[in-house]
Amino acid sequence: MAVLNTQIHIQTSAQFEVVNVTDHVMQAVSRSGVKSGLVSISTPHTTAGIKLNHFEPMLMQDMLRTIYRLVPQDISYNHDLFELRQNVAPNERSNGHAHLKAFLLGASESLPVESGKIMLGDRQSILFVECDGGRKRTVNITVVGE
Amino acid sequence: MAVLNTQIHIQTSAQFEVVNVTDHVMQAVSRSGVKSGLVSISTPHTTAGIKLNHFEPMLMQDMLRTIYRLVPQDISYNHDLFELRQNVAPNERSNGHAHLKAFLLGASESLPVESGKIMLGDRQSILFVECDGGRKRTVNITVVGE
Amino acid sequence: MAVLNTQIHIQTSAQFEVVNVTDHVMQAVSRSGVKSGLVSISTPHTTAGIKLNHFEPMLMQDMLRTIYRLVPQDISYNHDLFELRQNVAPNERSNGHAHLKAFLLGASESLPVESGKIMLGDRQSILFVECDGGRKRTVNITVVGE
Repeated sequence: MAVLNTQIHIQTSAQFEVVNVTDHVMQAVSRSGVKSGLVSISTPHTTAGIKLNHFEPMLMQDMLRTIYRLVPQDISYNHDLFELRQNVAPNERSNGHAHLKAFLLGASESLPVESGKIMLGDRQSILFVECDGGRKRTVNITVVGE
Repeated sequence: MAVLNTQIHIQTSAQFEVVNVTDHVMQAVSRSGVKSGLVSISTPHTTAGIKLNHFEPMLMQDMLRTIYRLVPQDISYNHDLFELRQNVAPNERSNGHAHLKAFLLGASESLPVESGKIMLGDRQSILFVECDGGRKRTVNITVVGE
Repeated sequence: MAVLNTQIHIQTSAQFEVVNVTDHVMQAVSRSGVKSGLVSISTPHTTAGIKLNHFEPMLMQDMLRTIYRLVPQDISYNHDLFELRQNVAPNERSNGHAHLKAFLLGASESLPVESGKIMLGDRQSILFVECDGGRKRTVNITVVGE
């Protein structure tokens, strides 16, 4: 049995941004030596998500519009009422909206590995979805198999 | 250690359709010989999702109404502006809405396997959620364990 | 290779409630003896979800408001039309809304395990999201690795 845990580090530059991390995950799977098994991709952040979808620039615009329509930025979130919260860091961001976007999106996805390759669909990419950038961000990759 | 990667092939017939694939996944787990481990179910498609919920016909209607309310079909999606996009296939569908539904739904779920069985709840089924049918579709199943 | 399947039992008391199960999952990982691998957390229920996010009391209020805005309680769900459904239990709840909340949230998440610890972000907790409480509930944990 083989296990590889590794991390990708990326820098985002916009509040909402979709970063295609497919090649990085493919490299990790290749490096793991696993021929048959599972790869799990997750984010340790609470204002970003991991999704699988088509990495098409105009669809990214639709993703932004959809997620901002479902979780608007211009309504009030209690998470941003710093006067009423405990243990608020001095540099805390008003990012209630971003936590809720990440809450809807989800933090991990799992995919099969066969013949040493990720079994991705033709139009499927592994996407890190930034909801509170620009920031330095991490993606966790775990490969388990044989 | 044992690993099994296998696929289910299904045919959907409606634009939105919920297909119960529980029995297929159970058979794959049984076939893998894994007594204790994990099963991951994923879709390689970008306009469909994998979810776990109650397979009850009237709830399927509510799922349709909810997801169409959150991602309406009658608003404009940039993904469908073919004149402005690159590399559009001649038979491309106007399916921006379906990508966004899949984006919200998610592409994979993982469940425990114990005593050779999937630990599903009494009312829990494994659902392939078609958002852009009818099409031939694939579900990927990975079983890892011992 | 080591595999551990275990369960947490909790009692919820409100219709919508976010329960922080991080410590329980950490204990399971520790008990598994797995140093490097994967932990999957899932719910066997169809009216609850598993999410990863910041466990901050005022953000919990925002989660409630967001999910109730997206899946309102005061519109009609066909799942609750008991006269038209088959096989309805005598004590069936009108919980169509809760199934749809769970449908949006998702039932499982996966995280890396390294040096015997879950690789969680600083502000990241493992959350059981009750949408139809109060009830006795179960969380499934699977640890796979070496």
